[in-house]
Amino acid sequence: MTTIRLNLSSPDRSHDVVVERGILRRLHQELRQVADFSRIGLVTDDVVRRYVAEALQTELRGRGMETVLFSFPAGEKTKSVETVLDLCRRLLTSGFDRRSVLLAVGGGVVGDITGFAAAIYLRGIRFIQVPTTLLAQVDSAIGGKTGVDLTSGKNLIGSFHQPLLVLIDPDVLATLPREAMQEGFAEVIKVALAADPILLKLVEDHGADLLDPLHRKLEEVIVRACQAKCRVVSQDEQEAGLRRILNFGHTVGHALEAASGYTLSHGRAVAVGMGAAIRCSELWAGLERDQATRALGVIERLGLSTKIPAEVELEAVLASLERDKKIEGEVCHFVLLGKIGTPVVKAIPIRELRMELEEILREMA
Amino acid sequence: MTTIRLNLSSPDRSHDVVVERGILRRLHQELRQVADFSRIGLVTDDVVRRYVAEALQTELRGRGMETVLFSFPAGEKTKSVETVLDLCRRLLTSGFDRRSVLLAVGGGVVGDITGFAAAIYLRGIRFIQVPTTLLAQVDSAIGGKTGVDLTSGKNLIGSFHQPLLVLIDPDVLATLPREAMQEGFAEVIKVALAADPILLKLVEDHGADLLDPLHRKLEEVIVRACQAKCRVVSQDEQEAGLRRILNFGHTVGHALEAASGYTLSHGRAVAVGMGAAIRCSELWAGLERDQATRALGVIERLGLSTKIPAEVELEAVLASLERDKKIEGEVCHFVLLGKIGTPVVKAIPIRELRMELEEILREMA
Repeated sequence: MTTIRLNLSSPDRSHDVVVERGILRRLHQELRQVADFSRIGLVTDDVVRRYVAEALQTELRGRGMETVLFSFPAGEKTKSVETVLDLCRRLLTSGFDRRSVLLAVGGGVVGDITGFAAAIYLRGIRFIQVPTTLLAQVDSAIGGKTGVDLTSGKNLIGSFHQPLLVLIDPDVLATLPREAMQEGFAEVIKVALAADPILLKLVEDHGADLLDPLHRKLEEVIVRACQAKCRVVSQDEQEAGLRRILNFGHTVGHALEAASGYTLSHGRAVAVGMGAAIRCSELWAGLERDQATRALGVIERLGLSTKIPAEVELEAVLASLERDKKIEGEVCHFVLLGKIGTPVVKAIPIRELRMELEEILREMA
Repeated sequence: MTTIRLNLSSPDRSHDVVVERGILRRLHQELRQVADFSRIGLVTDDVVRRYVAEALQTELRGRGMETVLFSFPAGEKTKSVETVLDLCRRLLTSGFDRRSVLLAVGGGVVGDITGFAAAIYLRGIRFIQVPTTLLAQVDSAIGGKTGVDLTSGKNLIGSFHQPLLVLIDPDVLATLPREAMQEGFAEVIKVALAADPILLKLVEDHGADLLDPLHRKLEEVIVRACQAKCRVVSQDEQEAGLRRILNFGHTVGHALEAASGYTLSHGRAVAVGMGAAIRCSELWAGLERDQATRALGVIERLGLSTKIPAEVELEAVLASLERDKKIEGEVCHFVLLGKIGTPVVKAIPIRELRMELEEILREMA
């Protein structure tokens, strides 16, 4: 068992991230240790429900802990403000009060809707992250960022609301398809390139073998990725500066996801986005050619492509990039690598970014 | 000019509450002093718009500060999650980014919808409270509590989101009807009874004369009420303990508002609620008869009734009390007075509270 402490400016918000194979088999103990709750809600999606959440509910019930299960359709469409309000209404009907807790049992979408509902229901109740995808375990379940979509845009509505605890059980990954493991590795590689060269070496050493959820080094990979993310978040919870480095690969990645009409998964879009950022880093941040080759190589070794998929229009990516960045002001904070493990954030006016990226993306297509 | 510093556990959230007659005439200066904003949004309602917000917009425009006005129908119905989402969509369309600011120009409803929209738009942007009713100036604009109604209940959705600044100009009260001044005094008397005997003396000395918005002592009343509220909130921002004393009169008050179908105003409902709490204090907290008489007297001197209005059914009040309190758990934190200025919070099981209150409310009817 590895316990990582996420220290934040306020002790109220600081919490543990616990990684251990099999930890969910004794979930009742973990819950009893943190606090006494009036009610426990398991929030999940219809797929994770069958594989994981129902078993957890049975386990908790067997220990005399009554729980209510709230399940939503799997997929990005569920990440909406309507889902969150629907969840809040159901919490009220089920008698959830200020001393209740919600458990987010699922991937990034479930984490977002649960975290945001917990942030606003009765002006904030407690919640626990129980991520069941690799991507959620190494990235989205940590750091307290929650966001949902409004009809008019992605992640427009949300808040910073820290969980009480993050419980990571690598054993739950056994039910994931290989594609989902690869998508999780996009975020592992991201944090490795931006903040942990030792993790990068570990991923290089074992390559695609790590896509086996039972691999003996997978737990170590998860722990290191979580530690790196916690180090960054503890220094800049609200993303005023340093935390931006975790957006490495995400500027182009988000634009690509949108341009594909969200048919391209987040992990695959980030892999391409990192490809673009690495090439830009050679141009604008002095990243040496052999380092760029090494960085691109590790992405590809995990079976992730760094090329823009043929079905996505370059012009749509550029248009989406402009639209997306407008809400952050006229300047884009583009994350580049000076060296592997040494990110630099460049403030680039959007118009300039578009011009320069156009050429690079054209070469990548 | 009186500047009250609201110190909170995090310096990010600490801010000033400024009280001065005429301060809104130099709003542009105040804004320039706090920060550089990319965009300024004035959020208001259709009544305050005509009396105050349009004039502020003209003033800011004259100083070269471009603003966008967002106006909603006046009244409690506007305090809904739908209004907040509508505002968020309009903010997006108008190009509001993370460096924008919202000004809540209005009473409690405007403060709530603006504060909550600012809490969740782009995971949180800054906002400034510019309260235009006495009730908002002495109570709701201070403390960072925001809440809106979900179809199924009052204030179910919300957050703690502190403003960057609170600007209080007693001159704007000149446009208020006498009834609205009285309603504000319900909250003045509440904080005086719970936390400031000197303020109570001030209100007793001048009585109903203070309902004149130009009264020379009104600014002092507002300043003292704000100071008292800031003292309490700075010690317990999230209402884990001490801040509960500011709910004096609100347990029965909220139930009464609901039972009247929100035809009874918040201030008038709180006045009756204080009446009930004072009588309960004699029974359960040892409040002496002469102190109870004095407390009831000051409420009545401001023209506020402490009797349950004839048109409201006692049974409806009790049912609403039970429903309301359920979401806080099975125990109600009922605020009583041991003496004037010395509140005590009693944790009373709901069923017991209902039984005991029934008799007291029957006597009051």
